[in-house]
This record gives sequence, structure tokens and C-alpha cells, in this order.
Amino acid sequence: MFPKATLERLKLYHRLLSEESKEYVSSEEIGEKLNIPPEQVRKDLSYLEYKGKPKVGYHVKSLLEELNRLFGIDKKVKVIIIGAGNLGSALANYPGFANYNIEIVGIFDKDQEKIGKKVGDLVILSLDFLERVIKRFNVEIGVICVPKESAQEVADLLVKNGIKAIWNFAPTFIKVPNEVIVRNEDISLGLLTLKHMLEVKSSQAKEA
Amino acid sequence: MFPKATLERLKLYHRLLSEESKEYVSSEEIGEKLNIPPEQVRKDLSYLEYKGKPKVGYHVKSLLEELNRLFGIDKKVKVIIIGAGNLGSALANYPGFANYNIEIVGIFDKDQEKIGKKVGDLVILSLDFLERVIKRFNVEIGVICVPKESAQEVADLLVKNGIKAIWNFAPTFIKVPNEVIVRNEDISLGLLTLKHMLEVKSSQAKEA
Repeated sequence: MFPKATLERLKLYHRLLSEESKEYVSSEEIGEKLNIPPEQVRKDLSYLEYKGKPKVGYHVKSLLEELNRLFGIDKKVKVIIIGAGNLGSALANYPGFANYNIEIVGIFDKDQEKIGKKVGDLVILSLDFLERVIKRFNVEIGVICVPKESAQEVADLLVKNGIKAIWNFAPTFIKVPNEVIVRNEDISLGLLTLKHMLEVKSSQAKEA
Repeated sequence: MFPKATLERLKLYHRLLSEESKEYVSSEEIGEKLNIPPEQVRKDLSYLEYKGKPKVGYHVKSLLEELNRLFGIDKKVKVIIIGAGNLGSALANYPGFANYNIEIVGIFDKDQEKIGKKVGDLVILSLDFLERVIKRFNVEIGVICVPKESAQEVADLLVKNGIKAIWNFAPTFIKVPNEVIVRNEDISLGLLTLKHMLEVKSSQAKEA
């Protein structure tokens, strides 16, 4: 296992390398583009099996291949979204997923007004079809984009139908059995970090 | 400064405590609800000035007050959103921000079809009004929700008009002067983490 912070940075390296056209890159080049010290870049990449060549740098293709395996990008994963509001629709239309071999195979809502309408290429389905879609496409991940009042109910439904991992965007904590992986994504927290950084900066300015 | 992972967990404690009705909580109770070991909870909270009482636990109100100060929640921050697509609209409508004293004061788009329409309580404005809104409301944070091709152009515009921090949802890296804080939020990365966790789990199952 990698330290969590390293894993987060490996994802950034992956994204950067995916857009790289050169054959080799150095830790200095990676570091400069991402605003990460080159020593940190080297340390993070030292966790991988592939090693760079001194004075030549890292072979982009080899590094990408290992990162692809690490994140399971070489395998396709099927995902469904519950809740076809703005957030669910934004995720369904998000162009970045294809790069990571992530396929959104269905979007669901309980609102009769929405059912049958399209989001991108997907038709919004009633929750009655949830079980069938999960089984038919072998869906592993469910994304919860419903109001917090309904989040637990939706989580229970996903678990009952064999979903292995839940990405929860509802601003509440959900309970699931131990074997199910949950990632809680509270959108406000990103803004909170920025707010904290502004605070730190302004108090530094006052001290200086 | 706090270790980054601690800061992330402090935000989770903050959210949990905001919903807590009891006067005191223990590290065990916090840990159990968040699936974090109690020793880790105690270690994280030991960075704060407020100290819990042995055998009694942490006074919820005191802890919340310090966390509020830490994240600058006691001060209001004004935010604008550029891009009124699904994602921008989802953020504009997001109910969680009010809890953190974050106020969305404007949403902008360059699409004539969208300008003048409403998202929640906000009217979508032309970018021509950007400067006026930033100055009038003393906006500190700009959120970029435009396609990646336009992200740099919007970032430049925000910087030119004195924005101090940028929350970038476009799946690309933007360049800004050193004094401007940037947080890149690639939505796919959350799914990538889940994919990685599924991989780890399935390889552990094979080894067992």
C-alpha cells in the first residue's frame, strides 16, 4: 500500500503523463508543472516497480503502463448514477471518465418528470430497473447524487443489489456493511480547504 | 500548519460535530461514526489548542468553535462560479455551503442562451459583469466550471480582476501567479481511488 498523499500525487502524475508527448520526462519537469518539489516526485515514483534512468528520466510509456495497472485503468469498470439532478447529470456528461476506462452505464431517478428524458446518451431510468442494469452490465460502482434525506435508502438498495463500492455525494454519512467500499465526497470540503488557505495566508501577511 | 491528512480528517470531524446534539463526545464515538481509529482521532485533535477532558471527552461547542476559526468559517467568504452548465449549476444549488459561511454571489456564462436565465436564486450573467460583481461583493474565490479549452482564459480573467483563490473543476492544469491559490478538482480522481481500492481488494481476495 502507498501512503495516501503519495496515491493522490500519483493520480496527478498519471494525468500529466497522459497528456505528455515526449518519450522521456524528468522529475524536475513533472515537479515544475505540478508545483511539487522534484525530490517529492522522485520519492513518490520510487514506490513503483518501474525505475527511471539517471540523467535520462522516466520513460513516459512505461510509467503510464504501471500507473494504469495500479489504478486498474487497464480494466474497464461499469458505474451507475442514482439521482439525475444537476450533479448527477454533470457526472454523467463528464468527459474525463473515458480516459480512465470508466463507463457510466445507467442513470436513475425516482422523479416521474425526469424518467425517460435523456442525459447525454443515457435515458433516465426508474429505480425499478436498478437490479436488472446492475446484473446485466456487471456494475461495480454506484454513485449517489440524491438529497441527503434519501441517501441511506439508496445506499441500502445498492448494497442489496450487489454493488461493491459507493461514491457518495450526498452531504451525509451513510452506513454500509464492512465489505462495501465507500468514498464520501462532500463538495463543500474543497472550498473549505481554499478558505483555510486564504486564512493562513492573511494571518501570515499580518505577522510579516 | 497541520499535516494534510490531518486537515482532511479535521473537516470530517467538523461536519460530524455540526450534527451532534450531545454536549460531550469521546474519541471512540467520533472514530466509530467515521470509521477512523480512536487513537488517530485523539492524535488529530491534539493539534488543536482546545484539549478534551479525560473520561469526559470533548466539549462539542468548544471544539466546533476552534474548528470554525481554523477553517475561517466564522468569516463569510464570497464566491462566484464561471460556467453555468450542469456542474456550475449543481454547485450554485449546493445546499451545504451555507453551513460553512460560503456565499455564492454570482454565476456567469458566455452562452447567450443561458444569460438571463436563473439557477436557484441567481440570474446567469454575461462575463462583461465579472469585474463589477467581484469589486461590488469583494469576491475572494472563483470557481471554474467551463470546458478545459476555456479554463486558462477564464483563470487569466479572474486573476486580472483580483481573485485570490481559484477552485478549478476543468480537467486541465491552469497557470496562475504564485500569490493566487489554486485547487484543482478532477472529478474522475474520486472514482479512480475507488477503482484502485476495488483492485487492491480483489488481489487480496485472490491471495487469500
